[in-house]
Amino acid sequence: MLITDKKMTGIMSKYVIGIDYGTLSGRSVLIDVSNGNELASSVFDYPHAVMDEKLPDGTALGVDWALQHPDDYLDVLGNTVPSVMKMAGIDAKDVIGVGIDFTACTVLPAKADGTPLCKTEKFKSEPNAWVKLWKHHAAQEEANRLNEIAEEQGQDFLKRYGGKISSEWMVPKVWQTLNEAPEVYNEADRFIEAADWVIWQLTGSEKRNTCTAGYKAIWHKHNGYPDKDFFASLHPGMRNFTQEKLSDDLYPVGTKAGEISSWAAQLTGLKEGTAVAVANVDAHVSVPAVGITDAAKMLMIMGTSTCHMVLGEKEKTVPGMCGVVEDGIIEGFLGYEAGQSCVGDHFQWFVDNSTPPSYFKEAEDRGIDIHDLLTLKAEKLKPGESGLMALDWWNGNRSVLVDVDLSGMMVGLTLATRPEEIYRALIEATAYGTRMIIETFRGNGVPVNELYAAGGIAEKNPFIMQIYADVTNMEIKISGSPQTPALGSAMFGAVAAGREQGGYENIVDAADKMSKLKDKVYRPVKENAAVYDKLFAEYKFLHDYFGRGANDVMKRLKNIRKTHV
Amino acid sequence: MLITDKKMTGIMSKYVIGIDYGTLSGRSVLIDVSNGNELASSVFDYPHAVMDEKLPDGTALGVDWALQHPDDYLDVLGNTVPSVMKMAGIDAKDVIGVGIDFTACTVLPAKADGTPLCKTEKFKSEPNAWVKLWKHHAAQEEANRLNEIAEEQGQDFLKRYGGKISSEWMVPKVWQTLNEAPEVYNEADRFIEAADWVIWQLTGSEKRNTCTAGYKAIWHKHNGYPDKDFFASLHPGMRNFTQEKLSDDLYPVGTKAGEISSWAAQLTGLKEGTAVAVANVDAHVSVPAVGITDAAKMLMIMGTSTCHMVLGEKEKTVPGMCGVVEDGIIEGFLGYEAGQSCVGDHFQWFVDNSTPPSYFKEAEDRGIDIHDLLTLKAEKLKPGESGLMALDWWNGNRSVLVDVDLSGMMVGLTLATRPEEIYRALIEATAYGTRMIIETFRGNGVPVNELYAAGGIAEKNPFIMQIYADVTNMEIKISGSPQTPALGSAMFGAVAAGREQGGYENIVDAADKMSKLKDKVYRPVKENAAVYDKLFAEYKFLHDYFGRGANDVMKRLKNIRKTHV
Repeated sequence: MLITDKKMTGIMSKYVIGIDYGTLSGRSVLIDVSNGNELASSVFDYPHAVMDEKLPDGTALGVDWALQHPDDYLDVLGNTVPSVMKMAGIDAKDVIGVGIDFTACTVLPAKADGTPLCKTEKFKSEPNAWVKLWKHHAAQEEANRLNEIAEEQGQDFLKRYGGKISSEWMVPKVWQTLNEAPEVYNEADRFIEAADWVIWQLTGSEKRNTCTAGYKAIWHKHNGYPDKDFFASLHPGMRNFTQEKLSDDLYPVGTKAGEISSWAAQLTGLKEGTAVAVANVDAHVSVPAVGITDAAKMLMIMGTSTCHMVLGEKEKTVPGMCGVVEDGIIEGFLGYEAGQSCVGDHFQWFVDNSTPPSYFKEAEDRGIDIHDLLTLKAEKLKPGESGLMALDWWNGNRSVLVDVDLSGMMVGLTLATRPEEIYRALIEATAYGTRMIIETFRGNGVPVNELYAAGGIAEKNPFIMQIYADVTNMEIKISGSPQTPALGSAMFGAVAAGREQGGYENIVDAADKMSKLKDKVYRPVKENAAVYDKLFAEYKFLHDYFGRGANDVMKRLKNIRKTHV
Repeated sequence: MLITDKKMTGIMSKYVIGIDYGTLSGRSVLIDVSNGNELASSVFDYPHAVMDEKLPDGTALGVDWALQHPDDYLDVLGNTVPSVMKMAGIDAKDVIGVGIDFTACTVLPAKADGTPLCKTEKFKSEPNAWVKLWKHHAAQEEANRLNEIAEEQGQDFLKRYGGKISSEWMVPKVWQTLNEAPEVYNEADRFIEAADWVIWQLTGSEKRNTCTAGYKAIWHKHNGYPDKDFFASLHPGMRNFTQEKLSDDLYPVGTKAGEISSWAAQLTGLKEGTAVAVANVDAHVSVPAVGITDAAKMLMIMGTSTCHMVLGEKEKTVPGMCGVVEDGIIEGFLGYEAGQSCVGDHFQWFVDNSTPPSYFKEAEDRGIDIHDLLTLKAEKLKPGESGLMALDWWNGNRSVLVDVDLSGMMVGLTLATRPEEIYRALIEATAYGTRMIIETFRGNGVPVNELYAAGGIAEKNPFIMQIYADVTNMEIKISGSPQTPALGSAMFGAVAAGREQGGYENIVDAADKMSKLKDKVYRPVKENAAVYDKLFAEYKFLHDYFGRGANDVMKRLKNIRKTHV
């Protein structure tokens, strides 16, 4: 039995903790700085989860609301950080840095000392005083109006966001607060991303990150926020919004935000003075976690939806991108983001709504999941064998068309069409959608030469990944950590600590030592790629026909529905 | 208690028997000549059913073969005719006429005395010597080649058949026989529709009908069959095909073919000398059975597929019609036929392949059929509510595009799309397909002013019929007899008997007294029709885009499938 007692080997290993704040829970992972290995992991479910019906005091919420409780974020710190150190048997003095990543845009109003307004007696029953979660969709009207106004004014920033500001982002959410609860707006000294608010709690000082500012709050490294006139045109009361309620004291990801305060040391068990990185976003922090630190490498985070990130050397306007932010992912590069709004959701819809009982019976008899059964059947088909072609727009199209009013389409159905053929066609459609994104980046001056994937689908589904490799005709490397965002956050913690403390000078060095890829690489099969080239040409033709105005039947059907029902 | 004893009332009622030969069985129905009322009905299942794997002696059949045994047709006569007379307590002397209808083109080779070649010792093991059923599809190559040659030669007859001769029809089936079994071809004195063969057996003389000749054997009232050069260009041995193996001694429907022979009297129990009408086709004979005897009234026979028939006053070329034959349905009119190749099959495909277990469970819990459950859910939706639109081409498109390589399409799918919405969209798509056929007739000089329906769907499905009424914006009258074809045949039997025998002088008079409609008429709902006008415009646009060459993606997908699998 090999015992690697650290004290006996004489090598004093150093550790970092990455904290990944998700939608329903937060997770701490303790990582070895020297090699990125994970020593312990601990999850804490938010006691208040997502509040979409009522506040803790019973106040009812409207349709499309989604709030959170800021105490839950602190409880994650208080529970999981001590836990991972204990589990791994690591002393706090050997933990040299902490990094966090968060959902975004998840935003709250706070007082100048950091107190969330929802924690004051005055505002505890006011929904707008609470944390608006990324998927809070009740500010859609404000978003629509903002986009109209920005378009009328020819605001240049729209181009950086694919032509549209999402209702999920900062300005619509804050504008909703001003419209519905002006007192909250007026008494808020700060509107702040929960990510930055947690860093504030850890270090005692407000140091915001450029990533969320750039992707979610219309901030640009050289041009800053939109000007006062623009905000005044939204609402006179917002004229000084960015000056009074935000901050342009912003720090690129990879910067040290500060050190663990004595208060935070007490909360977490970490040593006072431990380095803390500026906050980051869950998807973006995953990029260096798979080793990407330079241009032309795309990471896909594949789950219910897919997020595509790629680094570029120059700022280009790429149709349908969700955002481009300088230093937004890795310092020194333009970070581009694109997305597909329906991927895993697509396959789940099919299983829930279009899979016959005989398939469930067979899955049960064979003791396997229904998705696994469909996969077993679908992987026996060759490319093109189903004769089917779908447009993967069951939830609209994010990139490259940026159009929520588009809908799903399937062609090639016959009386001989079987469920596994449709299942495979839906998978292929999402792969064509990704290839469309890649080709659009390439066609607009942002090279994409390598492909990486993380997330549940990348982790667990070789069948889907092989189709993606064949359709894109690219090798796909897979994230080696099941906790990719937490590993990324830990890497930024190591950079915040710096080389002298046993960490790294920059994220490139950190990624070089700590990033993780699986041995398994998905390589395109030449014959499959050749067939998919032909099929993709058909996809593209239908994509442009239905998506670019030649036949707006999808929108007209939605309008007929609205008008007559 | 009211007793209507015929002898006591002093009115000597007269009766006719209609015999409907289907794909798996034959049915006799005994009908009161005075009012069309059905007194008795008897079915006999063909002992040999459809032979698609082997002959009675075990000889194996190839792919796409479908044969029948001529003895089964005689067994129908021997069993069901005596049976209905016995059941109704009717004496054979009061049965004044017999009419039959048959599937078509169902064809056999026979000797000059009527003996089927398959009944000879020499040919009993030769598949081509047997009856080729309408759905025998093994002559597809011959059909393809025939169409190529006819098109090269600019043969005018193609226009009467929507541009294509089907592999289901007479000439390809006979040509297959010459190619594969030349001895059968050479020793056959006749190739004859089973319909006409049965009449031959009943009367002792060969008197063929113009209906099958016109719709299935490329015969034209004024131009006759294609000329010898055309047949020689198919195969030198076929130069004299129509002169040597067919007959141009043809009789329009509604004519008397002859009288029950002594041999047939023995077989059936009918009186020798009873009038026998010339044979007819199941769909066509249904037209007068619902009371249609003049122009501009369309009958739809709605089942797994739909057949549309309408009478016209002049011969017009209508794109995509299956055929136009003078006197082919009612003497004095051009009988037009069109069709949709996938109607009930469409809905069944959905239930078999795309309906989730929870729906079957709910149907079981409520003790209803799955189609009924889907109908209950789908009929709660308003027109346009699903946001879905389908092209009903799961089995290609017969009318108006005549293209088997087209395939099904659906657009408007979202993550909120439910099974009943798809089910309804499939139903609506078939209704749009029917409206396209109606508009095509109208646009080419064949008015369609009234709509009638028969068949299983018309009989049993008010939900579907209401959608058809709303989509076509026309009233729909429903056949009043559950045995519409047999009633129609009985009517032709009454015409064959003639007025002096207690029948009718012509089919118009017969239809006037004997035809049957239900009281229930489906009337379009104005608001629904208005929404469907908008939706039909979308259907038409997609129909023309995918069906008329703007985007041949359906064909390319089928080609990719063929090439790579």
